Amino acid sequence: MTEPARIFTAALVVIGDEILSGRTHDKNIAQVATWLQIQGIRLKEVRVVADDTAAIVEAVNTLRVRHDYLFTTGGIGPTHDDITVDAISEALGVDVVVHPDARAILNDYYETRGGLTEARLRMARTPEGADLIPNRFTGAPGIRCGNVFIMAGVPTIAAGMLEGLVGQLEGGAPLLSETVGCWVGESEVADLLHATEKAFAGCQIGSYPFWKNGVTGANFVIRSTDPEVLAACARSLVVGLEDRGKSAIPGGI
Amino acid sequence: MTEPARIFTAALVVIGDEILSGRTHDKNIAQVATWLQIQGIRLKEVRVVADDTAAIVEAVNTLRVRHDYLFTTGGIGPTHDDITVDAISEALGVDVVVHPDARAILNDYYETRGGLTEARLRMARTPEGADLIPNRFTGAPGIRCGNVFIMAGVPTIAAGMLEGLVGQLEGGAPLLSETVGCWVGESEVADLLHATEKAFAGCQIGSYPFWKNGVTGANFVIRSTDPEVLAACARSLVVGLEDRGKSAIPGGI
Repeated sequence: MTEPARIFTAALVVIGDEILSGRTHDKNIAQVATWLQIQGIRLKEVRVVADDTAAIVEAVNTLRVRHDYLFTTGGIGPTHDDITVDAISEALGVDVVVHPDARAILNDYYETRGGLTEARLRMARTPEGADLIPNRFTGAPGIRCGNVFIMAGVPTIAAGMLEGLVGQLEGGAPLLSETVGCWVGESEVADLLHATEKAFAGCQIGSYPFWKNGVTGANFVIRSTDPEVLAACARSLVVGLEDRGKSAIPGGI
Repeated sequence: MTEPARIFTAALVVIGDEILSGRTHDKNIAQVATWLQIQGIRLKEVRVVADDTAAIVEAVNTLRVRHDYLFTTGGIGPTHDDITVDAISEALGVDVVVHPDARAILNDYYETRGGLTEARLRMARTPEGADLIPNRFTGAPGIRCGNVFIMAGVPTIAAGMLEGLVGQLEGGAPLLSETVGCWVGESEVADLLHATEKAFAGCQIGSYPFWKNGVTGANFVIRSTDPEVLAACARSLVVGLEDRGKSAIPGGI
């Protein structure tokens, strides 16, 4: 038997009153989740916390030791409610400093835009000892301190920071998935799903029901790190559905 | 001086591998957040956890004692990956039972749809001593155990359960908000925002920048439970922006 592959895990802390008030619909959970899957890293948990130092410190210090990587989004702009850098510095027990490279980037950017004011200089502040995450899309860099990755809350800016990290993080075998759709109520085939999952070690089957035009259907998403086991499990599920007179739709509905 | 109003708080646990894989974009955080605001209850924190008993138990037991109310979404369907009721029963230290009213609802519903199978009967299971949350939209009830409210993951079904709870939960004074928009880079007025927030006790100002057609703007959202202080703070911010030659747009952009 071969040693099971090491699984790399990550957590995400979404920081912002605007998410908790319902004013802003978060897009970073799905964005970071999708990006991590491609890097072969599993997002295991997410916390959404307020713009509140104690809440940020608690979440960061709980999750950074529990997982290989911790990402945060939000709270790194120039205004008084942007307290992420201060809170994470407190969590890590280091000072806040002005990062010289971040200062140079902002200096260049604001040279023709009214100059680098005190408020704008806030965006050059990092926990002491941090590195910058380059961002070729928008210029604004993210911040890396050990296994903590600090990113913007605006999804397009966060996307640029993730792009700057592609291939930089060690990951395990990516989790692969295959989807089988079927026009069936999931409760009609619950026993089949359960038996199929049990028959293929290392496979997980998620069931995602929906209603379209008054008809009940479901997509069954099979996940595994092993492409052969994944394919065999999907085939078995298709056969099982057909045996019950249901048309299975490989690829999903 | 009058006693400050009691503030009621809530937390939300979103349960589901499909959110953590990025496959499904969560809509329940914003939906629950918006609903709670109307009830005068503040959503203080959210956790997204996997379909994993230990993860659900940890989140539920941490948050249900920290807040007045705890909501969960996801994992109450008929399939093997729907483990929320089992995990919450474990968290609460009670048995899982078949709730007679839930069984009757399902019996009626499936009478003309192939009958109440063992898989479907899973959806009638609740923690012992729980009450049902009526759902006049889709029939499927939610579950209430003390201050824990268990709801479906499908947003339209969760909406029906929230509708069934309108006016049922004690809340404090609702948090009111006013928005002032301005075509300005938030970094240009960061000092003004900070000073204005400090000048009006109990007000919070959030700054939400954006770019439209190449122009930089921001909405400043002022929040308070006191309508008079809120209005005065918003007026002060408008005046402050105009003093700097910026057009303030009450209501936001």
